[in-house]
Amino acid sequence: MAKLGTARWPRKHLLGLEDVSAGEILAILDAADAFLPVCQGRAAAPQTLDGRTVLNLFCEESTRTRTSFTLAAERLGARVIQFDAATSSLKKRESLADTARTVEAMGLDAIVIRHSERGAPHQLAEAVVCSVLNAGDDVHEHPTQALLDMLAIRRRLGRLKGLTLALVGDVRHSRVARSNLFGLSKLGNRVIFVGPQVFLEDLDVKVETTTDFDGVLPQCDAVMMLRVQFERHESVSFDMDNYIRGYQLTSERLARAKPGAVVLHPGPMNRGIELTSEVADGPQSLILFQVTCGVAVRMAALSLCIAAKDRLAEAADKRAKQDKP
Amino acid sequence: MAKLGTARWPRKHLLGLEDVSAGEILAILDAADAFLPVCQGRAAAPQTLDGRTVLNLFCEESTRTRTSFTLAAERLGARVIQFDAATSSLKKRESLADTARTVEAMGLDAIVIRHSERGAPHQLAEAVVCSVLNAGDDVHEHPTQALLDMLAIRRRLGRLKGLTLALVGDVRHSRVARSNLFGLSKLGNRVIFVGPQVFLEDLDVKVETTTDFDGVLPQCDAVMMLRVQFERHESVSFDMDNYIRGYQLTSERLARAKPGAVVLHPGPMNRGIELTSEVADGPQSLILFQVTCGVAVRMAALSLCIAAKDRLAEAADKRAKQDKP
Amino acid sequence: MAKLGTARWPRKHLLGLEDVSAGEILAILDAADAFLPVCQGRAAAPQTLDGRTVLNLFCEESTRTRTSFTLAAERLGARVIQFDAATSSLKKRESLADTARTVEAMGLDAIVIRHSERGAPHQLAEAVVCSVLNAGDDVHEHPTQALLDMLAIRRRLGRLKGLTLALVGDVRHSRVARSNLFGLSKLGNRVIFVGPQVFLEDLDVKVETTTDFDGVLPQCDAVMMLRVQFERHESVSFDMDNYIRGYQLTSERLARAKPGAVVLHPGPMNRGIELTSEVADGPQSLILFQVTCGVAVRMAALSLCIAAKDRLAEAADKRAKQDKP
Repeated sequence: MAKLGTARWPRKHLLGLEDVSAGEILAILDAADAFLPVCQGRAAAPQTLDGRTVLNLFCEESTRTRTSFTLAAERLGARVIQFDAATSSLKKRESLADTARTVEAMGLDAIVIRHSERGAPHQLAEAVVCSVLNAGDDVHEHPTQALLDMLAIRRRLGRLKGLTLALVGDVRHSRVARSNLFGLSKLGNRVIFVGPQVFLEDLDVKVETTTDFDGVLPQCDAVMMLRVQFERHESVSFDMDNYIRGYQLTSERLARAKPGAVVLHPGPMNRGIELTSEVADGPQSLILFQVTCGVAVRMAALSLCIAAKDRLAEAADKRAKQDKP
Repeated sequence: MAKLGTARWPRKHLLGLEDVSAGEILAILDAADAFLPVCQGRAAAPQTLDGRTVLNLFCEESTRTRTSFTLAAERLGARVIQFDAATSSLKKRESLADTARTVEAMGLDAIVIRHSERGAPHQLAEAVVCSVLNAGDDVHEHPTQALLDMLAIRRRLGRLKGLTLALVGDVRHSRVARSNLFGLSKLGNRVIFVGPQVFLEDLDVKVETTTDFDGVLPQCDAVMMLRVQFERHESVSFDMDNYIRGYQLTSERLARAKPGAVVLHPGPMNRGIELTSEVADGPQSLILFQVTCGVAVRMAALSLCIAAKDRLAEAADKRAKQDKP
Repeated sequence: MAKLGTARWPRKHLLGLEDVSAGEILAILDAADAFLPVCQGRAAAPQTLDGRTVLNLFCEESTRTRTSFTLAAERLGARVIQFDAATSSLKKRESLADTARTVEAMGLDAIVIRHSERGAPHQLAEAVVCSVLNAGDDVHEHPTQALLDMLAIRRRLGRLKGLTLALVGDVRHSRVARSNLFGLSKLGNRVIFVGPQVFLEDLDVKVETTTDFDGVLPQCDAVMMLRVQFERHESVSFDMDNYIRGYQLTSERLARAKPGAVVLHPGPMNRGIELTSEVADGPQSLILFQVTCGVAVRMAALSLCIAAKDRLAEAADKRAKQDKP
């Protein structure tokens, strides 16, 4: 447990990186680091969550994040309940809080929630006693995605301080970009949002921005390409040819970045749009390693949050006993 | 095993409470009582169903009952197969019996079935060798729901005999009301169906009824509010304002019941319709405790039915051996 | 492991029976034979795949094959991820290879794939490092179905050489017929495709054919009835009455086959179309036994393929070490 760094992570919920300290982020990254060999098949997983139950409450579908959380929990010995929002009592006008409290009454240690509404995980955390982990709420936060990006970069580059990172694409509508901005900045890195002007307007965060991808590349240690969401842009005026010309990561473009600069993408990729296959499958790409890091980060987050929940419950029990003399 | 009370439960199926004896009901309630600490996280679950397989055959969706049965089975070490009727071979004109026999040939100890047709679980029990547990068939029976209600009441009130209980709402279309009527009456309690006249007509069971909720409340030890099924009533002429005026359980109304009377609801609740939030979340509400009791009752029911199935199979084996000298 | 016959199975993939040798087929059948007692509840399953992860990647639905593979993997201790193609990133324009590689990066030992496109499993096998098992690709191959048919026949008839087998129905559109033809022929059996002329035209395999079911029956040790796919034939001109008259397996017809001839059907059956209930439920029917054999065959296939994958990875590791002195 000392090894897991529970002393450095006092929270029972992981709702976002905006309100989390640098030390807390490092506590998760360090714990995740220790789980990486398990995810790479080079070590057996400790069954530290044996007998525990985790609820996957995905109100917006996401096969990859859902599967990653499921594997993370199951590898540690926990049982995972898949809640299908489409056929659930949520359809019978029940509130999210009542649904969650009902499942909690069946015995629950953590809820992993994805929701189309900003702040839904935070509201849920108010309603239940168990841990709540945010797996993405609207365009707000997606903390485990940012943490896995950070873990992948730190592993490859050997450090996660003093780096310059470009986050490229529709940053305005990206919870991934927001969570990365919060986390990377706190650890002392420089984050630049890059994209056409339309994506840089009305940002609700303070961040350095530029429309000139080629201009900033020579300063970049890492380039994170965001997914072009066709489902969002088909209705909007969006010139794909122009976008590709200015922002697609090609080998030529990547050559302008710092030597050894790494390439990230949260997936699923649109090959030939955000980046070429040559870059995606090239030696500087961390894209598949990010996926492996994702399971490690979620093992760490589940372990640390549930451990904190247990400590808080024990402390409450103790107080209750002391109160009645 | 002696502790589980298998000697008092001779049936391999749990199809309803209409044909079950008082002693058999108590056998399940006592076994469930012993499982409650497990469901409340205060004891480890005995792995008595390790290596067993349970099929969840839900032809009508029900996330909460399905999840409760799943957790009950998994906590005891069993594996649960989720059968998705919507995409299954049932769609390919295969009969329910052939579908069930096919899965049984893969190795199966119990089938938990929910079906829109009255008697479907009973037909299934004829077709297979394994145990069959009814998780709700049309407006007929829902035995585990009634058993969990009884367990919650007995735990809170300390007894389940000589009580007066009002079951309030659309009792005519409620399998929960019917199963509770059968079970509670057998144990020596008085059950009153309460609701507007339209819900009390053409009942297919013998039961005391009244339209006067306020009139019977002073005699009630327990009040069970049934869910208003909007999906059913939207087409029918149903005056919601009138219903709320006459049958919503408010704090004022609850104050007329016996002191310490308990409030139940099978969920999902329509807050502000069947009852106010003040009552739902108040000290007399058993609503979340019912959910916890549900897992305990299903652990008991699965354990007892599968144990009986094993005993019957052993006895048949023995007979077969004796027949060939 | 020696018992499992891993020495006789060198392949990490099971893509079809066309390119597999007689010895390799026998390696799987022998291993499956050893697993049958487990599937019949008469022996505990060895936890040889403990800690392993299998992905069920079903791009075409099939509850029965999916469930059979799931149980096979879970009985051996593996964890199974159900990939729901309908809600997955495949819908977000991601390629099958990228989807599979992404899940593989989370840690994966085998992918079980069903796909509507011929050759999709073979393409997938090129893209990933883990094992790939074909659970049916279009009208091409369905190797585990053919293997379970062979296991059921060999168990009942005591041999699988020199037999004559009729495969009856829409053989032209049947991956089951094709895989059985490849496998049974290799083991030295005579396979005859039987059906109306329209089903025997333009076959892409070399095989004895006849429209005269009654004529060949006296030579048959086994009759395999294929499912009439209403979904396929409703648009085509297809005279059901004529079909039933010529090809339905009735008790009278079965009496013309060799004494003790066995009846098979891959399911789901259309009772009263391909065969009568009397035959389906009669003493010569292997239909439910086929289902039991299916789990045993999939346990064998998963075990042997994953063992081969491990050996190949170890050998590659060794080579890599030797290369850098």
